[in-house]
Amino acid sequence: MATKYDLIVIGSGPGGYVAAIRASQLGMKVGVVERSELGGICLNWGCIPTKALLKSAQVYEYVQHAQDYGIKIDGKFSADFDGMVKRSRDVAAGMSKGIQFLFKKNKIDHIEGFGKLKAGKKVEVTGADGKKVDYSADNIILATGGRSRELPNLPIDGKKIIGYRQAMVLDKQPKSMVIVGSGAIGVEFAYFYNSIGTEVTIVEYMDRIVPVEDAEVSKQLERSFKKAGMKIMTSAEVTSVDTKGKTCKVTVKTKKGDEVLDADVVLSAVGVSTNLEGIGLEDLKVKTEKGKVIVDDFYKTNVDGIYAIGDIVHGPALAHVASAEGIICVEKIAGENPEALDYGNIPGCTYCQPEVASVGYTEAAAKEAGYEIKVGKFPFSASGKAKAGGASDGFVKLIFDAKYGEVLGAHMIGANVTEMIAEMVSVRKLETTGHEIIKTVHPHPTMSEAIMEAAAAAYDEVIHL
Amino acid sequence: MATKYDLIVIGSGPGGYVAAIRASQLGMKVGVVERSELGGICLNWGCIPTKALLKSAQVYEYVQHAQDYGIKIDGKFSADFDGMVKRSRDVAAGMSKGIQFLFKKNKIDHIEGFGKLKAGKKVEVTGADGKKVDYSADNIILATGGRSRELPNLPIDGKKIIGYRQAMVLDKQPKSMVIVGSGAIGVEFAYFYNSIGTEVTIVEYMDRIVPVEDAEVSKQLERSFKKAGMKIMTSAEVTSVDTKGKTCKVTVKTKKGDEVLDADVVLSAVGVSTNLEGIGLEDLKVKTEKGKVIVDDFYKTNVDGIYAIGDIVHGPALAHVASAEGIICVEKIAGENPEALDYGNIPGCTYCQPEVASVGYTEAAAKEAGYEIKVGKFPFSASGKAKAGGASDGFVKLIFDAKYGEVLGAHMIGANVTEMIAEMVSVRKLETTGHEIIKTVHPHPTMSEAIMEAAAAAYDEVIHL
Repeated sequence: MATKYDLIVIGSGPGGYVAAIRASQLGMKVGVVERSELGGICLNWGCIPTKALLKSAQVYEYVQHAQDYGIKIDGKFSADFDGMVKRSRDVAAGMSKGIQFLFKKNKIDHIEGFGKLKAGKKVEVTGADGKKVDYSADNIILATGGRSRELPNLPIDGKKIIGYRQAMVLDKQPKSMVIVGSGAIGVEFAYFYNSIGTEVTIVEYMDRIVPVEDAEVSKQLERSFKKAGMKIMTSAEVTSVDTKGKTCKVTVKTKKGDEVLDADVVLSAVGVSTNLEGIGLEDLKVKTEKGKVIVDDFYKTNVDGIYAIGDIVHGPALAHVASAEGIICVEKIAGENPEALDYGNIPGCTYCQPEVASVGYTEAAAKEAGYEIKVGKFPFSASGKAKAGGASDGFVKLIFDAKYGEVLGAHMIGANVTEMIAEMVSVRKLETTGHEIIKTVHPHPTMSEAIMEAAAAAYDEVIHL
Repeated sequence: MATKYDLIVIGSGPGGYVAAIRASQLGMKVGVVERSELGGICLNWGCIPTKALLKSAQVYEYVQHAQDYGIKIDGKFSADFDGMVKRSRDVAAGMSKGIQFLFKKNKIDHIEGFGKLKAGKKVEVTGADGKKVDYSADNIILATGGRSRELPNLPIDGKKIIGYRQAMVLDKQPKSMVIVGSGAIGVEFAYFYNSIGTEVTIVEYMDRIVPVEDAEVSKQLERSFKKAGMKIMTSAEVTSVDTKGKTCKVTVKTKKGDEVLDADVVLSAVGVSTNLEGIGLEDLKVKTEKGKVIVDDFYKTNVDGIYAIGDIVHGPALAHVASAEGIICVEKIAGENPEALDYGNIPGCTYCQPEVASVGYTEAAAKEAGYEIKVGKFPFSASGKAKAGGASDGFVKLIFDAKYGEVLGAHMIGANVTEMIAEMVSVRKLETTGHEIIKTVHPHPTMSEAIMEAAAAAYDEVIHL
């Protein structure tokens, strides 16, 4: 007889596993269906292993610039690509084991296989051997996540045209790489490969890289990346890739006409598609729209007892969003009274160097929304800590509503800003004003002082400019 | 005739120069008396140059552990002590020039020499050539700062028994060093010298290092420092130093009896004395107590028109406190209505590795103050970002008032925590509760998630433990 659960979660990424743990805390008997490694893409093929690679790149840069810091290296040094990949895989494997441990601790069953919804609140799980077993539950959360989006002109073959997944486990370091798309995934790999000596060209369809960020951030990152030796092509589109030869011939359509690039590998980083196929949505008539499952504020679909969270629902496809949605969803199922998620206060982080972090409106978006704004900006070149740390690229830019002093947006580029953005998320949640930020004593010397100074700059009270 | 100012500030440290700039913004004509480099100890002999040295040490550690990150070094590497010191001095000199620039921009006069209060709101300035010139002002702010405190058993000779100032410009790297005192200055130099190969022994009078921090932080730092090879003696006291030989014979009184240590150099880091001598306090009958000038909430002394800020008044002797006091003081003078500084919400940072940062009550202090508390702790060993970054030592510990959920204290030890503490200062200022922290979406993967998780741990909602 099929085991009966209070909750079955399909997918064990940062949406699914977090939902499962929170549900267990709230007293539910929980099973999680996962066909692959526990932890999903984020933990095994996304956030975590890429951060390990990026740390290797950063350390390699320190080694390259050791002399600037008063360190003598007599001899040669080199990036051991296999060593970096191995470290990255070890970190991911360790984290995935951590989820196993958490499942055991929280008495959550890991149901191995591919899950599909069936009528009567059932999930049919197909194991690796093809055998099918049905499980039933009072509540089912779909958290099946996403995968690399594929463009027709850029079919991923896994060898010469690759996605993020292959990009972190290549057999050998490519001499040259064309990266198509300059969102977080694109620019993180661009930074990583460029740092260790691969010749990198970024091709971006929009007129600037990291196009979801504030325009000034894009400009600064482009400047930093070019200084680091990358080639950047914006308002440009890959129309075809010829993979027949030893290398790839990449035809790029630009405003000035076509250009053909030669590269060992092309990385397609043009976004994420949702995993909605074969999970039984059609049979159960679960409503979807444009590749997303339609849910209410608490992640309930149109079908009673079926919920969806993470990449497969509206909102940014980010790990921390999926986790927050998972927690809210199960708290609501458990009869608690959680607040709905404020999608206007979700931070975004990109972990290249300089790092990029932001929350809320860009300057352009704030204006477009009709706000009268005050903008304050503080460059790290005026920060003592940044100077001492050898990291004076970048700035903090804050956008305030001129009328009430509300923080409409925070945009940062520089070392450590992915750790600094949490302060802005917190104070926006607590509805702070510019003057409260100015009067919050930030420790000296830190990069975080730049937040206080940027606020002061908006109100003509900045000290160090 | 003597130039007449709206405001004269004596001392150009982070209290004095910030007060001067803010005063100029508020329309005052300002002169700053400084006998030495602009920027004071913090900028020239404290916060900034030490951070440069610590960055060199950190990079040196990365070079030593490069292989762990997938980097091959074929050959030898070594710490170039002179190079590190030179970089540190260059950073400090650059920052001091920055203050010159800010003074020019804000039309602030730098009056070179030693300032002394005289009756009739005058300041007598003695130049390097011994000439005396009087200046008068409606308001005078004393911001003369501090210097190394000297113990009778540990007279600083600048060669074998040194203070922080000599410690950052030694002619050559000592083979061994005894550091007396384990506050921020002591442990930062301990980390620096140990990292680059000096044999370091810390002698602390109290029963734990960094004794102002939460006891668990002390324990973690001691563990990390011992792992890094330092010798740590607590409940121990240096009773005498014999400097007659080639090295120093340091007699340390411990619970187990006397022990004699042998070291090239002894660093005295037993705190700070205030610079109150010769500045005219007695003539004008400015009230002092226990080496501090007595002031009201807006830094006014008992004498009309005379104010004091920074290390020479009550409160912690920290750069960011001095700056905040300077701003509040001049805003009040200018007739604005600033809020008095909340001395209960001042962060403290220590920049060794692992870093230490805290704000508010320690667990012991909260209990002693009669609070019923909830404590939540999250170790970085459970943080994906920390693992990926190779920095899993340490934790975030939050202390809540059990009744209202108020954050009584935040204590952090680990990489980047000096950047993370600002969030806690901000949310304490905005009177947040534990549940609001739990429901603030922190970006993944960051070290800052540990704050959210520590709050969740206090309320039995932690996910990753």
